[in-house]
Amino acid sequence: MRTVYVNGDYVPESEARISVFDRGFLFADAIYEVAAVLDGKLVDFPAHLRRLHRSAGELGMRVDISDDALLDIHRTLVERNGIEQGQVYMQLTRGAADRDFAFDTDAMTPGLVLFTLKKELIDTPVARNGLKVVTIEDLRWGRCDIKTTQLLYPSLAKMQAKASGADDAWLVRDGHIMEGTSNNAFIVTSEGAIITRPLSNGILHGITRATLMEYAATTGVRIEERAFTVAEAHQAAEAFVTSASMFVGPVVSIDGINLSDGKPGPVATQLRQHYIAESRKRLL
Amino acid sequence: MRTVYVNGDYVPESEARISVFDRGFLFADAIYEVAAVLDGKLVDFPAHLRRLHRSAGELGMRVDISDDALLDIHRTLVERNGIEQGQVYMQLTRGAADRDFAFDTDAMTPGLVLFTLKKELIDTPVARNGLKVVTIEDLRWGRCDIKTTQLLYPSLAKMQAKASGADDAWLVRDGHIMEGTSNNAFIVTSEGAIITRPLSNGILHGITRATLMEYAATTGVRIEERAFTVAEAHQAAEAFVTSASMFVGPVVSIDGINLSDGKPGPVATQLRQHYIAESRKRLL
Repeated sequence: MRTVYVNGDYVPESEARISVFDRGFLFADAIYEVAAVLDGKLVDFPAHLRRLHRSAGELGMRVDISDDALLDIHRTLVERNGIEQGQVYMQLTRGAADRDFAFDTDAMTPGLVLFTLKKELIDTPVARNGLKVVTIEDLRWGRCDIKTTQLLYPSLAKMQAKASGADDAWLVRDGHIMEGTSNNAFIVTSEGAIITRPLSNGILHGITRATLMEYAATTGVRIEERAFTVAEAHQAAEAFVTSASMFVGPVVSIDGINLSDGKPGPVATQLRQHYIAESRKRLL
Repeated sequence: MRTVYVNGDYVPESEARISVFDRGFLFADAIYEVAAVLDGKLVDFPAHLRRLHRSAGELGMRVDISDDALLDIHRTLVERNGIEQGQVYMQLTRGAADRDFAFDTDAMTPGLVLFTLKKELIDTPVARNGLKVVTIEDLRWGRCDIKTTQLLYPSLAKMQAKASGADDAWLVRDGHIMEGTSNNAFIVTSEGAIITRPLSNGILHGITRATLMEYAATTGVRIEERAFTVAEAHQAAEAFVTSASMFVGPVVSIDGINLSDGKPGPVATQLRQHYIAESRKRLL
């Protein structure tokens, strides 16, 4: 049985519980991060901490615990649960109080929950076969740059994609692709340039997205940071998504339309290998 | 100490906890209802049950418990906690599972939490003095007709309103008032007609809203169900909100602009009295 961290204690997962008055449960007043684990160590951890602090700052949420202590909890869970490959999930809530839309952040103790997931991240079906995605209207709130637990719509969109025989959904606003349900979206032109939407309040500021774009730039890949339409996506030579748990996931079809030969493309495959190799050099 | 209902058990509030793997906590995959209590009995209870089933249906969520059993839990909590006036809060979640955007509703047991809040509902400062509201951009998701726990934005909007010296916010999309943070919005014209936005996916299908409109119609008040602008609201003779916990709450100023003499208006006051009197005739 896994060990889970809940508000200061390491407990068996069957005893991992939070108060029903926690605002994370009642108001989705909570933020989270998911860090990948490779070789028993954390990928891009400082960037996850930076984003946690940014999310907390945007919501006026307190982070009472030090970065070192957070790293220590991550490492303790990785070790106790024997994670060689997988994820550490961390959720911070504003705290527990009697239910009220109004709140007093200073009067609450923030809630903190961490748990691990064992998962093959390198040799995956997605890496081998790619993802089929379908485009679905983006009905999420206007601040998807803040990584909150308001994840019901992405979750429903993913289920809708699966019901139609695909693996995931790309969310569309005003005819343009925003991002995937839990990943950033990229297309590749026939000239090998990669296109991805610029950062805004409408999409997650993906850590893998940022790191990958640095890597791509160093290898001479041309990057166009601009909005792209569903029609452009349908006609792309390749496409891929980035996320902390998939790294780079090739996309092989969009709305049932195969991209090129319907197999993971060379640009996505090369970027994936490059990303994994570079990440392994700076594990924490 | 209050008694709280959690997944089949009546427990002291300090022991009222749910699993950190509950999708209500991790994905805001949860719906809720709040029923008012007057004279130790439930207001408009059948309508709350109908809406719970509608929300569950829209999300493909299971309601495994009978309506009679839900009524029984409500009554047990009201009695044990000695609630003469106040609320019963009920939250249903899809259930607990290892964290994944994809889910299998049939493989989970829905989570169910109920608790009470003791609160004066009749002789309140809002009834006496009215509410000051400010208009704020509506950044919520596209399915506010489903009563989910994705309440972070309304909560932040309420805090923003308070920070500016007001009591609550009215949310605005495309220049038109959608609704309050946790209530439906109405304005009253100088001819005494009441105007409120028609139902859509963008606003809560308020139970008090529906009941009030029936009552208003029987008393000969003219009702215009149409979208209205912020400018119209500023120039209204009166305004008010409806919710299960406020019933009818007079609005006396909008964006710092007093409506008429800046005191609760006669139409709102009369509708409030009428609503309370009628509700008392059909308590459950």
